[in-house]
Amino acid sequence: MRIIKNVKEMKEFTARAKESGKIVGLVPTMGYFHQGHLALMEKAVQQCDVVITSVYVNPLQFGPKEDFASYPRDLQRDAAMAEEVGVDAIFSPADGEMYPEGFDTTVSVGESLTNKLCGLKRPGHFTGVATVVTKLFNIVKPDKAYFGLKDAQQVLVIKRMVEDLNMDVEIIPVPIVRESDGLAMSSRNVYLTSEQRKAAVVLYQSLKLAEQQVKKGHIDAVEICRQVKEKINNEPLAELDYVEIYSYPDLKFIDKIEGRALLAVAVKFGRARLIDNIILEAQKDVSDSI
Amino acid sequence: MRIIKNVKEMKEFTARAKESGKIVGLVPTMGYFHQGHLALMEKAVQQCDVVITSVYVNPLQFGPKEDFASYPRDLQRDAAMAEEVGVDAIFSPADGEMYPEGFDTTVSVGESLTNKLCGLKRPGHFTGVATVVTKLFNIVKPDKAYFGLKDAQQVLVIKRMVEDLNMDVEIIPVPIVRESDGLAMSSRNVYLTSEQRKAAVVLYQSLKLAEQQVKKGHIDAVEICRQVKEKINNEPLAELDYVEIYSYPDLKFIDKIEGRALLAVAVKFGRARLIDNIILEAQKDVSDSI
Repeated sequence: MRIIKNVKEMKEFTARAKESGKIVGLVPTMGYFHQGHLALMEKAVQQCDVVITSVYVNPLQFGPKEDFASYPRDLQRDAAMAEEVGVDAIFSPADGEMYPEGFDTTVSVGESLTNKLCGLKRPGHFTGVATVVTKLFNIVKPDKAYFGLKDAQQVLVIKRMVEDLNMDVEIIPVPIVRESDGLAMSSRNVYLTSEQRKAAVVLYQSLKLAEQQVKKGHIDAVEICRQVKEKINNEPLAELDYVEIYSYPDLKFIDKIEGRALLAVAVKFGRARLIDNIILEAQKDVSDSI
Repeated sequence: MRIIKNVKEMKEFTARAKESGKIVGLVPTMGYFHQGHLALMEKAVQQCDVVITSVYVNPLQFGPKEDFASYPRDLQRDAAMAEEVGVDAIFSPADGEMYPEGFDTTVSVGESLTNKLCGLKRPGHFTGVATVVTKLFNIVKPDKAYFGLKDAQQVLVIKRMVEDLNMDVEIIPVPIVRESDGLAMSSRNVYLTSEQRKAAVVLYQSLKLAEQQVKKGHIDAVEICRQVKEKINNEPLAELDYVEIYSYPDLKFIDKIEGRALLAVAVKFGRARLIDNIILEAQKDVSDSI
């Protein structure tokens, strides 16, 4: 497996693969791999001839008070894990390679998808994501790119951008991978103390509670959110950031769950801000029985 | 020559050209061709195997009070002129093809290049330009793209964007083409009455005045601007929009012309807002003798 540090070399690597007619897959990551990342890579290896994983903690998508400096990094460990699942190259550029002196261009997706959930709580975050993903797509030129559904809003933003800017890449969303107790895999789980780790299971439990309610026919979005908040607030170590329900995939405000809806939560445990979500599905034309 | 109206067909056209190893050139335009456009196409025909000219009056780069609706359009005439100089295809999409329902993504170049000259006078203009050019590059995938230096600031913005977003396209700037009396060719010259047309020569004359002053060793930027403004204001039909001098190509504020500088002017004649510019070049280390 190759470890590529600069843009020029990365472009040449893909150009050679494309010349021989190979399907190129990209798994964009910030590294510090867990099973969630590996699921993306495994899917890419199944579907593509050549798989590149980018490992880049993108400063542009972190706010000034966020965890850019402390975000966990371990390229050697990542490289061993990626090689194990059959990745062909890791692209791990330095900041000066991605954002040289004078860099001054951004790609933004509008407010209908970004002024809610993590976009509202992390201003500039999705512009940072859209900009770095545009760069990665232009550098690697993948036929397919793989994104985890834990960042459900990110997947929708990237899909919107790809469609709007006529980019030739197929976006493949991959389901959330969870620990055995249901906690969604995240590089930020490493921040959790063992007490916080146990408490963090409340995220998944609250999502399952909502899912059960919808299955029973309760479709009042405000009431579901209230119950999810109550469940999370009952956990003393949890500090609620947001619990929100929107239609899916267009993220419109809804007061009733009809068809598909995204229930997304963000909760802080100490210095770890964790997110999780679930797609709720209610039959249309069912009246609210709460 | 092909006239292509939709994105899918345009992508297929380029894909076929690229498969056979051809160099693809793109000349992005808003149509209503004049000799300036033809100079871009001729250059492209010289340097490329396949040349595509896009003809698209991009609503995103016009302000609400600008001339989007009245901007001159004549695809049949444009097609004949393009064919004459050897263009292989015109890409002329409808607005619904470029900006379908739900479109919500923009590409922006930051203020160091855009909060001055036309960027200051036309807020959102360069975001509209960067966004449509990104789309055109992704649709047509040119190896080289040709832009006229009459829009000098636009060329700098596009070059910045291409470098920042790692786009694989070479930007080729082409010199301004002028009428015999010096007026820069522009599709908007069609708005001029015959009186205004005669008066409009003052733009070029004012630029040449500045050039002569610099050649004589006068390098005080404020004084040069003052003389250019005076010259333009002496023309009763001219309504001055801006006269500015910046270092070139980085568009920094300067008070002395040392090395290369961009002198750019925008002047209204009735409903026509015309722009023009010149690159001034002064030797460094020459003291101001004004």
